[in-house]
Amino acid sequence: MRVVLKISYNGQNFNGWQIQPNKRTVQEILETELTKIIGENVRLYSSGRTDAKVSAIEQVAHFDCENCDVNHLAGRLKVVLPDDVKVNEVFVKEDFHSRFDAKEKTYFYNFYLSRYPNPYYDQIALHIGFRFDLDKVKESLQYIKGTHDFTCFTASGTDVEDKVRTITDIQIIDNPLGFYSLKITGTGFLYNMVRIIMGTLIEVGRGKIHPKEIIEIIESKDRGRSGKTVSPIGLVLKEVKYQ
Amino acid sequence: MRVVLKISYNGQNFNGWQIQPNKRTVQEILETELTKIIGENVRLYSSGRTDAKVSAIEQVAHFDCENCDVNHLAGRLKVVLPDDVKVNEVFVKEDFHSRFDAKEKTYFYNFYLSRYPNPYYDQIALHIGFRFDLDKVKESLQYIKGTHDFTCFTASGTDVEDKVRTITDIQIIDNPLGFYSLKITGTGFLYNMVRIIMGTLIEVGRGKIHPKEIIEIIESKDRGRSGKTVSPIGLVLKEVKYQ
Repeated sequence: MRVVLKISYNGQNFNGWQIQPNKRTVQEILETELTKIIGENVRLYSSGRTDAKVSAIEQVAHFDCENCDVNHLAGRLKVVLPDDVKVNEVFVKEDFHSRFDAKEKTYFYNFYLSRYPNPYYDQIALHIGFRFDLDKVKESLQYIKGTHDFTCFTASGTDVEDKVRTITDIQIIDNPLGFYSLKITGTGFLYNMVRIIMGTLIEVGRGKIHPKEIIEIIESKDRGRSGKTVSPIGLVLKEVKYQ
Repeated sequence: MRVVLKISYNGQNFNGWQIQPNKRTVQEILETELTKIIGENVRLYSSGRTDAKVSAIEQVAHFDCENCDVNHLAGRLKVVLPDDVKVNEVFVKEDFHSRFDAKEKTYFYNFYLSRYPNPYYDQIALHIGFRFDLDKVKESLQYIKGTHDFTCFTASGTDVEDKVRTITDIQIIDNPLGFYSLKITGTGFLYNMVRIIMGTLIEVGRGKIHPKEIIEIIESKDRGRSGKTVSPIGLVLKEVKYQ
């Protein structure tokens, strides 16, 4: 039986999704509690990893079990899981794969513009304290949209061979609480991709990279020409869409 | 010389704005650091108190000093203040009073609808886990707007005599991150007023109070007929407007 979970977590005190020895990870905590409840060894497969300190509003994962009772599983998980990771939905769906069937993912990268830090935003957004031209950033987004080889926007040395991905939607959103979000939707993302795109947009905003230069940077496939990998604090996986 | 400060804080670990013996408060921390920097005893006056755990995106306060140098004050404060309270702006303005000159204040009360808690939202929003009719809540807002005696929406036993206040704007806002906010603007607020209004709207949303009943509740001036004082976590002072 294949069981699907919708999961949310505050990444602050996690070393990311994936199990690693002696580190607190979302996968490890969920597998441990599920194994105890189900009474079988549970191995979880998510739509994809998230890095240390990255949060998820809605992550999707699945596991297989032979004789398991999924009634009340969500309610039992609610009680045993720590405050910073919760399961919001549980259902059975054969022939479902959380990673291979994922059609689109949406991330938000939150940031705010202000000379000094704002402790209210600091929980969920990156502070940008220098002069910043948001219009130039908006102008540059059109060059990231579409299907490209995104080698320039991933950590060098990753072992994924095909670095072609499709960004279906990318925009800057005004949050009514007074900060901004880079909202980015794509069919798939490379390692550190959203954080490096945001780091590159910061260089656009401060005038170090011209909006149109984004075309050249993508064509160059050179990680050295894009911006820094910015802090994970502003990043949150908003949702994963399936057909 | 009268010095005005714009202040932001994450209320989580504060016992509110106002100084109280042996408690960590925003006012106490700011007065202590200002007194050290300025070299005179500083007494701060804010636009109004905020309760324990309530945050502020932009609170305004002022103090008087005789021989003080306010150049670089913001920069020096940035260094000495803890991570959860920061001063974003400092300027001199004689004949300014942070409380008496305030024309309007805007608060956001954030909440989210989902069967189980969502750890990402839990930092800044109230969880509503039961069936909730948002349209009824929206319908009821028109009865709160305007000038009324709001005795029903303040903690009983407060010593303020005149409980007439004017709500100039009240609406439910969709936050792009997937939660909601009650955005409420008024010329002044009574003690616990926003939290009790939100508590009453929760009763409307769950069907215990009919939208039009809000008219009667306000007319009754009876605290017993309105909803609970909900958690301070969802509440944030967004801004204070001056002429």
